[in-house]
Amino acid sequence: MNNWGRNIRLSIFGESHGQGIGIVIDGLPGGIKLDVEKIEAEMERRAPGRSNISTSRSEADKVEILSGFVGGMTTGTPIAGIIRNTNTISKHYEKDLLRPGHADYTAYMKYGEHRDYRGGGHFSARITAPLVFAGAVAKQVLNAEGVSVGAHILKIADVEDEPFDPVNIGEKELSEVSKKSFPVIDDKKGELMKQRILTAKSELNSVGGIAECAVVGMPAGKGEPFFGSVESRVSSLIYSVPAVKAVMFGAGCGFAGMTGKDANDEFYVSGGKIKTYTNNNGGINGGITNGMPIIFRAVLKPTPSIAQKQRTVNIAKMENAEIEVRGRHDPCIVHRGTVVIENAANIAMLDLLYDKF
Amino acid sequence: MNNWGRNIRLSIFGESHGQGIGIVIDGLPGGIKLDVEKIEAEMERRAPGRSNISTSRSEADKVEILSGFVGGMTTGTPIAGIIRNTNTISKHYEKDLLRPGHADYTAYMKYGEHRDYRGGGHFSARITAPLVFAGAVAKQVLNAEGVSVGAHILKIADVEDEPFDPVNIGEKELSEVSKKSFPVIDDKKGELMKQRILTAKSELNSVGGIAECAVVGMPAGKGEPFFGSVESRVSSLIYSVPAVKAVMFGAGCGFAGMTGKDANDEFYVSGGKIKTYTNNNGGINGGITNGMPIIFRAVLKPTPSIAQKQRTVNIAKMENAEIEVRGRHDPCIVHRGTVVIENAANIAMLDLLYDKF
Amino acid sequence: MNNWGRNIRLSIFGESHGQGIGIVIDGLPGGIKLDVEKIEAEMERRAPGRSNISTSRSEADKVEILSGFVGGMTTGTPIAGIIRNTNTISKHYEKDLLRPGHADYTAYMKYGEHRDYRGGGHFSARITAPLVFAGAVAKQVLNAEGVSVGAHILKIADVEDEPFDPVNIGEKELSEVSKKSFPVIDDKKGELMKQRILTAKSELNSVGGIAECAVVGMPAGKGEPFFGSVESRVSSLIYSVPAVKAVMFGAGCGFAGMTGKDANDEFYVSGGKIKTYTNNNGGINGGITNGMPIIFRAVLKPTPSIAQKQRTVNIAKMENAEIEVRGRHDPCIVHRGTVVIENAANIAMLDLLYDKF
Amino acid sequence: MNNWGRNIRLSIFGESHGQGIGIVIDGLPGGIKLDVEKIEAEMERRAPGRSNISTSRSEADKVEILSGFVGGMTTGTPIAGIIRNTNTISKHYEKDLLRPGHADYTAYMKYGEHRDYRGGGHFSARITAPLVFAGAVAKQVLNAEGVSVGAHILKIADVEDEPFDPVNIGEKELSEVSKKSFPVIDDKKGELMKQRILTAKSELNSVGGIAECAVVGMPAGKGEPFFGSVESRVSSLIYSVPAVKAVMFGAGCGFAGMTGKDANDEFYVSGGKIKTYTNNNGGINGGITNGMPIIFRAVLKPTPSIAQKQRTVNIAKMENAEIEVRGRHDPCIVHRGTVVIENAANIAMLDLLYDKF
Repeated sequence: MNNWGRNIRLSIFGESHGQGIGIVIDGLPGGIKLDVEKIEAEMERRAPGRSNISTSRSEADKVEILSGFVGGMTTGTPIAGIIRNTNTISKHYEKDLLRPGHADYTAYMKYGEHRDYRGGGHFSARITAPLVFAGAVAKQVLNAEGVSVGAHILKIADVEDEPFDPVNIGEKELSEVSKKSFPVIDDKKGELMKQRILTAKSELNSVGGIAECAVVGMPAGKGEPFFGSVESRVSSLIYSVPAVKAVMFGAGCGFAGMTGKDANDEFYVSGGKIKTYTNNNGGINGGITNGMPIIFRAVLKPTPSIAQKQRTVNIAKMENAEIEVRGRHDPCIVHRGTVVIENAANIAMLDLLYDKF
Repeated sequence: MNNWGRNIRLSIFGESHGQGIGIVIDGLPGGIKLDVEKIEAEMERRAPGRSNISTSRSEADKVEILSGFVGGMTTGTPIAGIIRNTNTISKHYEKDLLRPGHADYTAYMKYGEHRDYRGGGHFSARITAPLVFAGAVAKQVLNAEGVSVGAHILKIADVEDEPFDPVNIGEKELSEVSKKSFPVIDDKKGELMKQRILTAKSELNSVGGIAECAVVGMPAGKGEPFFGSVESRVSSLIYSVPAVKAVMFGAGCGFAGMTGKDANDEFYVSGGKIKTYTNNNGGINGGITNGMPIIFRAVLKPTPSIAQKQRTVNIAKMENAEIEVRGRHDPCIVHRGTVVIENAANIAMLDLLYDKF
Repeated sequence: MNNWGRNIRLSIFGESHGQGIGIVIDGLPGGIKLDVEKIEAEMERRAPGRSNISTSRSEADKVEILSGFVGGMTTGTPIAGIIRNTNTISKHYEKDLLRPGHADYTAYMKYGEHRDYRGGGHFSARITAPLVFAGAVAKQVLNAEGVSVGAHILKIADVEDEPFDPVNIGEKELSEVSKKSFPVIDDKKGELMKQRILTAKSELNSVGGIAECAVVGMPAGKGEPFFGSVESRVSSLIYSVPAVKAVMFGAGCGFAGMTGKDANDEFYVSGGKIKTYTNNNGGINGGITNGMPIIFRAVLKPTPSIAQKQRTVNIAKMENAEIEVRGRHDPCIVHRGTVVIENAANIAMLDLLYDKF
Repeated sequence: MNNWGRNIRLSIFGESHGQGIGIVIDGLPGGIKLDVEKIEAEMERRAPGRSNISTSRSEADKVEILSGFVGGMTTGTPIAGIIRNTNTISKHYEKDLLRPGHADYTAYMKYGEHRDYRGGGHFSARITAPLVFAGAVAKQVLNAEGVSVGAHILKIADVEDEPFDPVNIGEKELSEVSKKSFPVIDDKKGELMKQRILTAKSELNSVGGIAECAVVGMPAGKGEPFFGSVESRVSSLIYSVPAVKAVMFGAGCGFAGMTGKDANDEFYVSGGKIKTYTNNNGGINGGITNGMPIIFRAVLKPTPSIAQKQRTVNIAKMENAEIEVRGRHDPCIVHRGTVVIENAANIAMLDLLYDKF
């Protein structure tokens, strides 16, 4: 199903080389002022064709809002945003040669002969553009409620940015990093990352990495004890983003080597509020927000589209074959993916914020 | 909401020290023979009070099936299974002292004064017993369809078991490991793990670890391209299991340091079937199963209940305090958690198997 | 799926002659005081075996609350209520002779050979007992919010009670009628109805009728413009009640013969509140509550279980046959059905009340 | 929420005077050939501005399919269809005068000051155009499976068409009536109905009526025993159609005056299939299809927009006022509504058809 959400509801659609892509967002309140320029700026951060470290396919990614928005304000009814595809070159895509690491084979098995294989069809990372639109809308609602979300590139190949401070991270750091088109805290590390990407590109290869996301201002008490845990709901959305293969909260994998004494976040009272000295749990206890910053990380795999020769199968002939993936591709998806993940987090947080009681 | 699932639907309920706990499972076909002894054996694997490395609270964990099951066969209507709580000692639980790492504070913020704080209430890992029941039911349906699921302890503290072979893992290895009450491939490593647990116990501390789960026999083509990806649906269920703080598929975090050339799983034809040489993607491309083994890992944090003195807050007085957590607790939850995760995977796979087309 | 609800969520289970029946209610707030005696009184209104106009099967219908309820208060986590079946006589039910008007054939087609055919299995009206439990719980939450729901028998066979006054109906009239075990406004008409039932019983036949339900105190603005309209959500729940074959709001079928001038409910201001002079729309405009009483009616068909000889099919032999339905049955389901519908309305209203914004 | 469906999923959006309206349909199989001309013909049946008995607002109602459809075939991924609004005259709509019978007041209470009041906004019957699009798509999938749906006007004002024969209705009768723009079985009655509409129009008034819908070819065994009954799911969708205030299955309201002997549909075997002599239950027993034609009726209220002077309230001033509703309106919505209901039934049937097992 193409839906996500309990309190807000998304419906996404579109294919890379079809007429257009888009999303319907339901469940927002009426009377929220939306700054369209800010939405466009967010779209621009994710948009393709903006630099030599991303795909050369250039798309305006201009969202047309068809409904739910009048006179600069939400009306409370569903907001539909659509984006026209303009710069499509389908000739590079061969229907029968399965691209390794891509969904060509699984799409064939699920949808059969008549799947849209052009540019990956509905599986294309291009479908994350509407998700960014929804996230940019959610962000403005969240900000009005005092909640801020930001993400940065924690790692690309072997280069690591400094991590967020899980206890002291604030709105200011988040808004600073989330304005950048190559979002890193330490821009020098960012330059090294870009070098790694260009090297991979020159080698007809690609590199992966990690995005780290933080949320401040979420009230305590949001989420559910079991099936609706914050982790369940956030991960289910983040794992919708193509290329994500790991999602971790707080200390994440680090917990495997910790003791309870080290892992537990002890409580204290400060200024009438309850806080924790450490934040290994990433702001979540028992599936519910505890008021500390929410921290999670997502691993993005290297772009599967590489121009090197790879072994594969011709699905029509059912025989072994070779492929050199053409088309215009990203040698690294992490920087654009970080923008997507930040915006997906905006959506997840808004959905959580509306949990009742 | 206490529900999970698209094609099968679970509803879970109960508190650690209440009358009972249970689950309702809807969406199973009628006419499936269920072997109750196998279900009981699975319950026994998770059950508390069976050894010195787990809690001393001893519960029969006998499930009474109230509905949907007549003459040894499913009827097709909802199956309700309930488990009575018998061995409860609530006096150890103090209402006002927040246990670090637990949900005491978040439960208070969500439910208020009248939450059931005894034994962690609805947040207790005890609530995973009904999940194991549901998984043990799902397992028998899956097995009849040729799908097998197994999990082992990959790591506790600093001791690592050998990982599953992601390409060649078979039904036999899975059924072998999934019969063990301390499920490891290398039993010598298992002994070392138990030592680590006993050491932690003697130090009034606890340790964490990693569970690894594999699925063989799932047909290609199950899952959805975006919001209903296999990763989204599996992680949303696995993150419902208390103490899980990271979920990773295939190469998982390893992708961050790989190149596309290394990460891509190249295809080949073998005996009229399409396979991949490697299985970094854990059997999932574009959110959909590709017919290779499905592999995922989950990190479980160290049990937060430790008898050492910890700093905390008295929520009634809103002042700083100290706590030594009493009650009967597990010095490590990983071995019992691995059984829970395996059974949760059974549920997730059955839900995926029923995806239409 | 055995689930209903957006903001509260029900999961129902059980068969007429199985171990027990029950329901799980999720989404209630914590800290709501529940008067168990009032719940029992409501169960008693629906319970079988209480008079000569209902089935002679006598069941205590005592609900055991397994979870979510401590010290007389809701905890905020799921409430599971179970009812044991005690007085079952399965020998009257023949597996292969399809009872006309019942679900024997459709159950066979859906679930196959292994359906639970005893007493109608999961299709039995007995499964409405848990629904009444859930409604009796919802009622107490609603009453605390100033919302009252009541229903009466509008018609049995050819005898009609006076209808509710759709404009002036108040909490007092509703609470009066909803205390009665044979809920009619005009008790003389009630006596006539009982005579019709006894006559039908003596003729080995049964009669149908209409229940009318009203709600006062619901704030304006609840519901949704399209798929989540009040009518959609209420009817989807009321149509879950066995034997209901028509659901009508406000003037209902009467609208077919009205003009717009007559049908429109004109507005006026009174004491700072907006009201309508008439209430043909049953308190709902555009799928959303307008603050006037919500009025709906449901038609219940005559009990299909009659002892007269009927033509049918032996499904095992696939040949024509005859049947005289045995077992203990109601010659009329309307009076007990009205209690069920009132309680289902409690649930629907609570779900609507929690619509956000 | 703007979603409907279990197995197929609709998301609807748009306002009467906004940029456009549309729908996303998910859950259809890939490889279904769609005849766009047939879809356009169905849109044309509902389209406004085609005759003197409907609104004079003329809209092309041309659907642009943005996704999920390539080379005349479905791809299996979501189909998004959008319709531009072109012929909007918003000046006739006054923001502050509440139109009786409309959703102006309830929209204000739900969405507040910034609702889109122009032309009724999201509450406009115009939003049924995308529903017809979805139904016309569903129809082609259904027809390929041997299922046919048709609807006719059973009644307008005091003029009644002959009803469908609930036992013998066939595909031929349904396809014949469902081609008509004014769908009646007896065209002479249709002429009388049109006269009633023109009379009402000349009197600045409007009239209501009843649509009757039949489905043949649905296999037995679809639906669910309780919350997912055929009646629950069909009524929840039909009640989404503006102006519907009653939904009845089979004998519907007639059941109230019947005895069990008369109401029960006795079974017989014919040609290896099980049928019923009568079809009072409208093809549904215990919430599940029994293989007989599915029959339901829906009452549509008279169009609330009438040019006569009516009493109302000025919501800005909170004082009593008068209104003469301007704009271009239908003096009767039943004929266009019948097309909408037929198409909604297509959707509901496809959703039911995909029930598993």
